[in-house]
Amino acid sequence: MTNEVPPMTIKAIGVVRNEVKETPAERDWWTELVSEIVIDSSLTEALDNLDEFSHIIVLYWMHRVASARVPLKVCPMGRKRLPPVGVFAARAPNRPNRIGKATVRLLQRQGNILKVQGLDALDGSPVIDIKPYIPGYDSVDNAEVPPWITKR
Amino acid sequence: MTNEVPPMTIKAIGVVRNEVKETPAERDWWTELVSEIVIDSSLTEALDNLDEFSHIIVLYWMHRVASARVPLKVCPMGRKRLPPVGVFAARAPNRPNRIGKATVRLLQRQGNILKVQGLDALDGSPVIDIKPYIPGYDSVDNAEVPPWITKR
Repeated sequence: MTNEVPPMTIKAIGVVRNEVKETPAERDWWTELVSEIVIDSSLTEALDNLDEFSHIIVLYWMHRVASARVPLKVCPMGRKRLPPVGVFAARAPNRPNRIGKATVRLLQRQGNILKVQGLDALDGSPVIDIKPYIPGYDSVDNAEVPPWITKR
Repeated sequence: MTNEVPPMTIKAIGVVRNEVKETPAERDWWTELVSEIVIDSSLTEALDNLDEFSHIIVLYWMHRVASARVPLKVCPMGRKRLPPVGVFAARAPNRPNRIGKATVRLLQRQGNILKVQGLDALDGSPVIDIKPYIPGYDSVDNAEVPPWITKR
């Protein structure tokens, strides 16, 4: 069925700059981190008005996944004592298309540089899209998650 | 700067099936729509545990954008009487990488087929990732948006 659709090519629109070279053990670790997203200067004008939003959605490429093999099941949040779940039920980076999605606070836009807080991307990650965060569209009230999502 | 990173290739993991052949004029129109996402059968097991979540995030390819030219500015929500804004401050499909992101209700998973409500994708759209919706990660309290985002 996927043969119906030719492979799609995406290009980096920018790159993440921060001090993080390796994935930290704790997910919460990212919350306070401030990163810069340096957007290709030919696209600077496409960032206009973005700073009218307090938060943005960043799609980025999880470029540091070394393995060529994509597992169908993973231990959620890398915690090996939890039973494995389907990779689409997890946010693990090693997935069929290695696209990460983060909702982050936009602290500042200056020309082609965005300063953001809470982006869980390693230094050098290619950025592939930026979208405004719109609560009525991106947020759900009373969403349910399984108990293992909060287990430590 | 984007020259640092070679183009990335993504493959469809599935396809959207519904009755919608053309983009409707009103954004709200999608809210009640039920679509099927047919995932490649080789990835069926990767969907395990997904139905423990009430909502999922769907990344899909907006395959019906005809224009080869990507504008830097667009009229928000296609409303031509609003002043144009940067394309990254809008959710317009004609963007450098034509990836759409929707948060939808997961009604049912049956084998490799997901039945979802509220997906704003046309029939035949390639699906490129599925992620669980996790409020603490995907939702923001008190996010601010500009007044034009709700203007009709």
